[in-house]
Amino acid sequence: MKPWQTLSSNALVEDRWIRLTADRCLLPDGKVIEPYYVLHERDWVHVFAQDDDGSVLVVRQFRYAAAALCVELPGGVIDEGESPLTAAKRELLEETGYAASEWISVGRMYANPARQTNSVHIYMARGLTQLTSQTLDESEDIEFEFASIAKVHEMIEHNQFSQALHVASFYRSLRALERGGA
Amino acid sequence: MKPWQTLSSNALVEDRWIRLTADRCLLPDGKVIEPYYVLHERDWVHVFAQDDDGSVLVVRQFRYAAAALCVELPGGVIDEGESPLTAAKRELLEETGYAASEWISVGRMYANPARQTNSVHIYMARGLTQLTSQTLDESEDIEFEFASIAKVHEMIEHNQFSQALHVASFYRSLRALERGGA
Repeated sequence: MKPWQTLSSNALVEDRWIRLTADRCLLPDGKVIEPYYVLHERDWVHVFAQDDDGSVLVVRQFRYAAAALCVELPGGVIDEGESPLTAAKRELLEETGYAASEWISVGRMYANPARQTNSVHIYMARGLTQLTSQTLDESEDIEFEFASIAKVHEMIEHNQFSQALHVASFYRSLRALERGGA
Repeated sequence: MKPWQTLSSNALVEDRWIRLTADRCLLPDGKVIEPYYVLHERDWVHVFAQDDDGSVLVVRQFRYAAAALCVELPGGVIDEGESPLTAAKRELLEETGYAASEWISVGRMYANPARQTNSVHIYMARGLTQLTSQTLDESEDIEFEFASIAKVHEMIEHNQFSQALHVASFYRSLRALERGGA
């Protein structure tokens, strides 16, 4: 199974928020597909942060495109030149005010590899200390709380923890815990 | 925590493949954000189909945006006017040639609610029968195989089953199985 080749790539929208291209692609069997739209995104990080009782830090915010209030893990976009781990520490601090003494990489996944270029990097954080209050961007309004693992399962099943990428990161972190990999 | 209001929405790209708008949004605190980009997508379905031994049908295809060969669950876009269950049956049949006698809804999640409007609907399928061969779109080149649950876990951890949305659907299906909800 061979990769497709990019014959050309034309930027339709390009600013600090988004880069969308319309590509002309050559398939292995010789067919040409056009336009194939690609969203060029920076990588993201998700943080599975547990307190000493095993409860998980979750954040709640309004998500405009789906018009939904979503409970998620802390996380966000990795800045240019920033390592995934540094971004994970920064996002946890900005969204919750917490720092952690122990950081463990759980792995990475593609966000949506048919349409988007980027990956999600997952970290577990432990040894939490509240250092500061939140430091949010102007468009951000984020509440945070600690929730037990059982409560997060329940929120997933009741469509409150409803962001698929975060559901994946939550379960991958649980699996890493079960496997003793962390 | 109140929703944002849409003051205006301007379609930048709109065809059979994609609809991207640049919105002007009023936040609850009175701030106005513009542009806020929204990808208007149809809902998707994922199928967790198990044979009588508990092995899971997985598909393997090249995903252009991430330039990666990805193992995933069967699934795809719900057509206009089609129910999620009908789409799940159609996608399983098209991608693998299999039909199932038992279908169970596992739930739904938002694909990426900050940027995209759509949800992913998850179904478990059992009582599999191979009815036909694959029926693929011209741009599709899909291999399928049965993999044990342990093998899928391994493929997730080794970044082969690497599509975050499908990772979420796999774990949600396992959780439903463990809970005896299916």
